[in-house]
Amino acid sequence: MLKVAVIGASGYTGAELIRLLVGHPEIDICCVTSRQHEGLPISQVFPSLAGFCGRVCESLDVASIATRAEVVFTALPHKSAMAVIPDFLAAGCKVVDLSADYRLKDQAVYEQWYQPHTSPELLPEAVYGLPELFRDEIGTARLVANPGCYPTSVALGLAPLLRNDLIDPTTLIIDSKSGTSGAGRGARQGSLYCEVNEGFKAYAVAAHRHTPEIEQTLSHLAGCPVQVNFTPHLLPVSRGILSTMYASLRSQQSTADLLELYRQTYVDEAFLRVMPGGELPNIAFVRGTNFCDIGLVSDERTGRVIVVSALDNLVKGAAGQAIQNMNLLCGFNEQLGLGIVPLFP
Amino acid sequence: MLKVAVIGASGYTGAELIRLLVGHPEIDICCVTSRQHEGLPISQVFPSLAGFCGRVCESLDVASIATRAEVVFTALPHKSAMAVIPDFLAAGCKVVDLSADYRLKDQAVYEQWYQPHTSPELLPEAVYGLPELFRDEIGTARLVANPGCYPTSVALGLAPLLRNDLIDPTTLIIDSKSGTSGAGRGARQGSLYCEVNEGFKAYAVAAHRHTPEIEQTLSHLAGCPVQVNFTPHLLPVSRGILSTMYASLRSQQSTADLLELYRQTYVDEAFLRVMPGGELPNIAFVRGTNFCDIGLVSDERTGRVIVVSALDNLVKGAAGQAIQNMNLLCGFNEQLGLGIVPLFP
Amino acid sequence: MLKVAVIGASGYTGAELIRLLVGHPEIDICCVTSRQHEGLPISQVFPSLAGFCGRVCESLDVASIATRAEVVFTALPHKSAMAVIPDFLAAGCKVVDLSADYRLKDQAVYEQWYQPHTSPELLPEAVYGLPELFRDEIGTARLVANPGCYPTSVALGLAPLLRNDLIDPTTLIIDSKSGTSGAGRGARQGSLYCEVNEGFKAYAVAAHRHTPEIEQTLSHLAGCPVQVNFTPHLLPVSRGILSTMYASLRSQQSTADLLELYRQTYVDEAFLRVMPGGELPNIAFVRGTNFCDIGLVSDERTGRVIVVSALDNLVKGAAGQAIQNMNLLCGFNEQLGLGIVPLFP
Amino acid sequence: MLKVAVIGASGYTGAELIRLLVGHPEIDICCVTSRQHEGLPISQVFPSLAGFCGRVCESLDVASIATRAEVVFTALPHKSAMAVIPDFLAAGCKVVDLSADYRLKDQAVYEQWYQPHTSPELLPEAVYGLPELFRDEIGTARLVANPGCYPTSVALGLAPLLRNDLIDPTTLIIDSKSGTSGAGRGARQGSLYCEVNEGFKAYAVAAHRHTPEIEQTLSHLAGCPVQVNFTPHLLPVSRGILSTMYASLRSQQSTADLLELYRQTYVDEAFLRVMPGGELPNIAFVRGTNFCDIGLVSDERTGRVIVVSALDNLVKGAAGQAIQNMNLLCGFNEQLGLGIVPLFP
Repeated sequence: MLKVAVIGASGYTGAELIRLLVGHPEIDICCVTSRQHEGLPISQVFPSLAGFCGRVCESLDVASIATRAEVVFTALPHKSAMAVIPDFLAAGCKVVDLSADYRLKDQAVYEQWYQPHTSPELLPEAVYGLPELFRDEIGTARLVANPGCYPTSVALGLAPLLRNDLIDPTTLIIDSKSGTSGAGRGARQGSLYCEVNEGFKAYAVAAHRHTPEIEQTLSHLAGCPVQVNFTPHLLPVSRGILSTMYASLRSQQSTADLLELYRQTYVDEAFLRVMPGGELPNIAFVRGTNFCDIGLVSDERTGRVIVVSALDNLVKGAAGQAIQNMNLLCGFNEQLGLGIVPLFP
Repeated sequence: MLKVAVIGASGYTGAELIRLLVGHPEIDICCVTSRQHEGLPISQVFPSLAGFCGRVCESLDVASIATRAEVVFTALPHKSAMAVIPDFLAAGCKVVDLSADYRLKDQAVYEQWYQPHTSPELLPEAVYGLPELFRDEIGTARLVANPGCYPTSVALGLAPLLRNDLIDPTTLIIDSKSGTSGAGRGARQGSLYCEVNEGFKAYAVAAHRHTPEIEQTLSHLAGCPVQVNFTPHLLPVSRGILSTMYASLRSQQSTADLLELYRQTYVDEAFLRVMPGGELPNIAFVRGTNFCDIGLVSDERTGRVIVVSALDNLVKGAAGQAIQNMNLLCGFNEQLGLGIVPLFP
Repeated sequence: MLKVAVIGASGYTGAELIRLLVGHPEIDICCVTSRQHEGLPISQVFPSLAGFCGRVCESLDVASIATRAEVVFTALPHKSAMAVIPDFLAAGCKVVDLSADYRLKDQAVYEQWYQPHTSPELLPEAVYGLPELFRDEIGTARLVANPGCYPTSVALGLAPLLRNDLIDPTTLIIDSKSGTSGAGRGARQGSLYCEVNEGFKAYAVAAHRHTPEIEQTLSHLAGCPVQVNFTPHLLPVSRGILSTMYASLRSQQSTADLLELYRQTYVDEAFLRVMPGGELPNIAFVRGTNFCDIGLVSDERTGRVIVVSALDNLVKGAAGQAIQNMNLLCGFNEQLGLGIVPLFP
Repeated sequence: MLKVAVIGASGYTGAELIRLLVGHPEIDICCVTSRQHEGLPISQVFPSLAGFCGRVCESLDVASIATRAEVVFTALPHKSAMAVIPDFLAAGCKVVDLSADYRLKDQAVYEQWYQPHTSPELLPEAVYGLPELFRDEIGTARLVANPGCYPTSVALGLAPLLRNDLIDPTTLIIDSKSGTSGAGRGARQGSLYCEVNEGFKAYAVAAHRHTPEIEQTLSHLAGCPVQVNFTPHLLPVSRGILSTMYASLRSQQSTADLLELYRQTYVDEAFLRVMPGGELPNIAFVRGTNFCDIGLVSDERTGRVIVVSALDNLVKGAAGQAIQNMNLLCGFNEQLGLGIVPLFP
């Protein structure tokens, strides 16, 4: 059994890691940490976990944890993550980091959107943990930067088009909508039930920190610098991201041909489901799972393709993808512990 | 007191007309019709209306109703509306039609997206009832075609940019999200609570019938034919439409300058609220009212402007705008009966 | 125009007072206070209010406010309310207090459920502001203690039965369910969207502070001491309280007879709607209004009556009832400013 | 691998059976039926199932199905179920029936609440499939009547009190609240999103068909005839039932002592979780699982105990319990395929 630690277990991402890890046949959760709930059983922090995990929340003592854990999941805010990850690595742990701290390859870009980086020397080594695009690098990594939720939905939705140079990347518009768990479990007025319920809004327009991460991956796929408009919105649901993406096709392509390209591209991908023609994804159909569902329409009138992708922001957008990365890191079957059927309704 | 009839009173739009009309100081609702609920008090169809409206649902007898009503609101499905409107007009009634039947000026376009038109001779006469754009024509009309909910949110959001030729209309992308009341009160599986709740999806991509209506108005504003991508989505809320609109600016414009343009354009409009810089609309802040709130951001990185508009699909997107049109038709103060404060939370 | 102040304007109850007061024809809001948002326009705290209220949030300076306001609404937490109310009264203001501080007649009971009372000398004078039961006393009061949301739903639902000695009060069970706005706008983890959404729970079982308030009123109605089980639950909706109440009938009574009793009892009450036989209230049908809807069923099998009442916790359960009280205090028509049609859906 | 058929696969209960069965290691789903969707892959009826179940919906041909299936799950409406179950039994299949048709032992009671019974000769043989109470009988049954969702929540919540004669059963009040999936996937106006969302109501007061089923089990537990008031309510959530139950204690009992009794009673039950003292269940913490969580409070003031139980109506209230019964019927480990961690948030 592989010993793993969940650092930052009292947030929604931490709870989701535990939910998935307790169902993983090769894993032993040896440690969960929470500054806020130190000393409290995690099953009291999340009564949903009663009967599944007997761990008590610890403080974050890297030296102690590193003697027990082989793989460490850091589910901390950016900045807090890079404050401990170098020590975990130095102590011999492998790290899957769910924060943004090691996702951007260019230190200057990171510092422009976040703050000064305290361990830039690790950036070249860190592997961007999107298995469908970077599977080989992940297998041999020490530090995996688990992608953001929005960037995952965008990269998987656009990869076949960009790799095959079918769209003009200067025309890309990305309109994304996320469930509220993406805002975390911190007590903020903007996340209150009455503020979110029966509401809908755009936020951080032209200013969201996932923009450079999206552009880094799309530029890689396109082979040239790509700039996009990315607009996130807050959905009154607990889980789910749906991204609607628009681009001008370089030449006319039918919906059927494009869907066939997607099916071929992703034929071996267990977690990508390309929708039948005429159907489009719904976040309700991926709930609780590591799936990313993708559909598209080619609009002959305007010459644009509209791609829609849907995933669960806490699973394929965070904890599920982190476990998929861990499976690759540790030589397990990539799907181990992730064969969950979506919960509908 | 003006005598009005509500034709098709058992749908959400019909109920909303009654909700607003009973608070209108110059109106007497002389008739409500419902085929399904004939003989039942409307206050049993909608217990919310108990104490406000004592009318019993009648069958749709044009001759009888025309002797009693001066203004008729037709809240029927398209096709059903044009089956009775010519008779109401012939009998001397003024009509505010909430269906799509008289919105499109071009019969061929109507027939391409809907079905054969049975009274095309009325199309030239019908006035498109978007008061902020066509106020003068409405005042003297006999037949007002009340705009669709999505088209209202789009036209009001883009008018200042198009009229002043600030954007390239070929780059327009419109990503809209609507609450579920837009799907009506008919018992359809797709509108069930469990199908919509915790879900989110795009639908009718590149194929929604509001597309030609949007393009008709935008073309009028731009002074040239405009084609757009319009993508509607279904939101798990009861009320509200939010449209996020993207276009390339012809030249660089600051957010502040564009907001100032919007404020000047709409300075005399009681129902348009331009958000302060840095703030964006939320459907929660217009609930139950005839407001359309508008915000925007100019993105210097990409040269695009992102405009966001929010309205209540049942009010400014349907019944409220219909009453605003009736006020204009009948020489009342345009705001009469519509001075409602939004219900938040 | 009557000058009124809203103390504690940045909570949901404060916002609701303003929503209703700006539509009241005899009122001028001369002051709104908020410690947290001092200096900010209330229309930025609540963008829903843009265009309706131009006031800027002030700090709570009793002396200054008392020179401007004739009636003061205190929408503060308990304890904070009684810290300022004696001064407002001494300065000549009339006060409608929405906190719990002056609701309980017995100081000892107050201190058992809350904390030491700092102005017990005002308790005999304070009038419990439930107009349907204590209308006469309210008209001449200086200090009105506006009832709690749950107690209002219970007292109105049970008054006809208790006054006519039709039930055995020792058998009373009250099972209540409240929307989340009742928990306030403070940033608490338990009120987060993801904690409340798709959830449902009982809380404060056998320990909720509204219990003594409920018992005080029911004892008054019954003419003898009444103890009840009162169990509140948290509903995943923004607004609404529904109370389901059970008691053994002293003798057999038909549903029809009991409904007729209710109709007669409340025949002159503008804000109480007794449902037709066979229909039961739904919080959706009173949303945004000062109504309390009541239905009931007499169960011959068990000899019990089941009464169900529904109201909007922010209106009849708080701000609306406060304005109803103000209308009585100031000699206005009791319904002034409260003639709102429910928002459905 | 055990061959099983799901009869009535296009409802929410049918979909839930498939969701759980595809994760069961000993099961092969050999047939799914749906009159409405005959010929359509079940993964198009429920896109959530894409990749998990390749079956195409068949018509309900008992003879054909009986040659292929060893165990048959009937997820049909009452009356439809008993129209086919005798034939399945005659053909040698074991049947787990999720309808109400074989739950009531007394034919007269069945016919009073439902309609004439067409196979009353099977009633004595049918076993009421509540494993925590009737495990031994289930193991040897041919026909298991899977309990209703409400009755399961009630029986598990009250069994320890009734068996130990700690409460006066004549005082029992049961106030239950159910998510909307309990109303099924049929297109009914009352189940529309806009009718349910932001609403809450009681329904079928003193008249719900689960009443005799509840009373049958409680009478069995109490050893004497028990009549209760049972009031169901409709919750604006997709899944979950929470029952709040009140009864007078025969003698004073502390909360701690009663909880200890529950813990001892259910110590070997994998799917019952007794809450720690001071904590109460929330439907959010059992979502998607076969758990029933139970908490309670003893109120010394009134001498009553308040028990709260929570379960997922589609799992422990339907499909999960059906699979638990199948496991018992077929000699599998009772928990096989049901070890799911709750999905929170």
